[in-house]
Amino acid sequence: MGALVLHDYWRSSAAWRVRLALAAKGQEATRLPVSLLAGDQRSPAHLARNPQGLVPVLEDGPLLLSQSLAIIEYIEESFPEPPLLPADAAGRALVRSAALVIAADVHPLGNLRVQRWLRDRMGQDDDAVTLWLHHWMADGLSALEEFAARHGGQFLFGDRISIADLCLVPQLYNARRFGLQLDDYPRLLAVDMAVAALPWSAAARPQEPLNPT
Amino acid sequence: MGALVLHDYWRSSAAWRVRLALAAKGQEATRLPVSLLAGDQRSPAHLARNPQGLVPVLEDGPLLLSQSLAIIEYIEESFPEPPLLPADAAGRALVRSAALVIAADVHPLGNLRVQRWLRDRMGQDDDAVTLWLHHWMADGLSALEEFAARHGGQFLFGDRISIADLCLVPQLYNARRFGLQLDDYPRLLAVDMAVAALPWSAAARPQEPLNPT
Repeated sequence: MGALVLHDYWRSSAAWRVRLALAAKGQEATRLPVSLLAGDQRSPAHLARNPQGLVPVLEDGPLLLSQSLAIIEYIEESFPEPPLLPADAAGRALVRSAALVIAADVHPLGNLRVQRWLRDRMGQDDDAVTLWLHHWMADGLSALEEFAARHGGQFLFGDRISIADLCLVPQLYNARRFGLQLDDYPRLLAVDMAVAALPWSAAARPQEPLNPT
Repeated sequence: MGALVLHDYWRSSAAWRVRLALAAKGQEATRLPVSLLAGDQRSPAHLARNPQGLVPVLEDGPLLLSQSLAIIEYIEESFPEPPLLPADAAGRALVRSAALVIAADVHPLGNLRVQRWLRDRMGQDDDAVTLWLHHWMADGLSALEEFAARHGGQFLFGDRISIADLCLVPQLYNARRFGLQLDDYPRLLAVDMAVAALPWSAAARPQEPLNPT
């Protein structure tokens, strides 16, 4: 791997996952902002990096990688220590399944571009959009609370942090931001605190720019 | 691995991906139907298998696995030949990113449960739901057409079938089912035909039961 560049947006929860993975491995990347509110993700420069027009994008020399979970698996393979996946195939599969509950079944339904479609094309008001967001978040978080009851310890899967936790933490931030009541997820809240207690995790948290866009 | 059981629904494109992975590896699984139209996915028996109430679920002895991409990675690790991921880290990352375009950014937005919410809770009619489905499908397929232009050969990534192709084929079936015009995706259509030409792929295709539910 050469010098890493992360095309980033401070409030993107998918970008936050990648920032956490890099921080867990003690790796630095140059962070270049792509403002989703200003529409920078549809600029020719960004579409050349990622035809989907989404963040994050990780640049490693000539390699341009999109999709946060694919990026995280690449980071995991490139910097194996400390591991973010269990040592056995069944454990790895369970961790990946928990990560995908967030990355496939919750987050894409609450994305900014989806919220805009519901408002602008389907005429939905704030209350209807909030109800939609809460519904899919609660659906996924309930499944993960049950996952933690079956497989969890200090973290979602046992007592070591994994890529599942990297997906959970930004989603809980989003849940709070949109006012979802979290009392029903005590195990998830404990995992959130366990990640926050890791000294390296703070640098990955969203930090609003001085002139936010 | 012991005897495999796949909790399946004939029209689920996520289940189809898993059926393709098993078929590519020459593996058999006992297929047990979970009718999404009849609501079997919300039965206590199925929720015990998968608290998300979704298909597919792969059962391997005591291990219960949900999320199609996690299941496929598990199949890949358990039966390495023939490989469904490239040999190098960059290739694997690119293939995973292409798979996630479908599995995270297209398919979850068109799921039956999402369509129902748009109709029942947001009062959207058939035309509005179709427009929604077409929009997200076209968005993802356009990105994959560009991916194929950059990285593809006979398949989405080079000349060997990969998990990206396993995600593409069921999505193209869905696109046709919902009337999306596919002329803009010649590379994807060629991949679709290349997969269809593989003798083992036919058994994985959706086969409507005699008494469909």
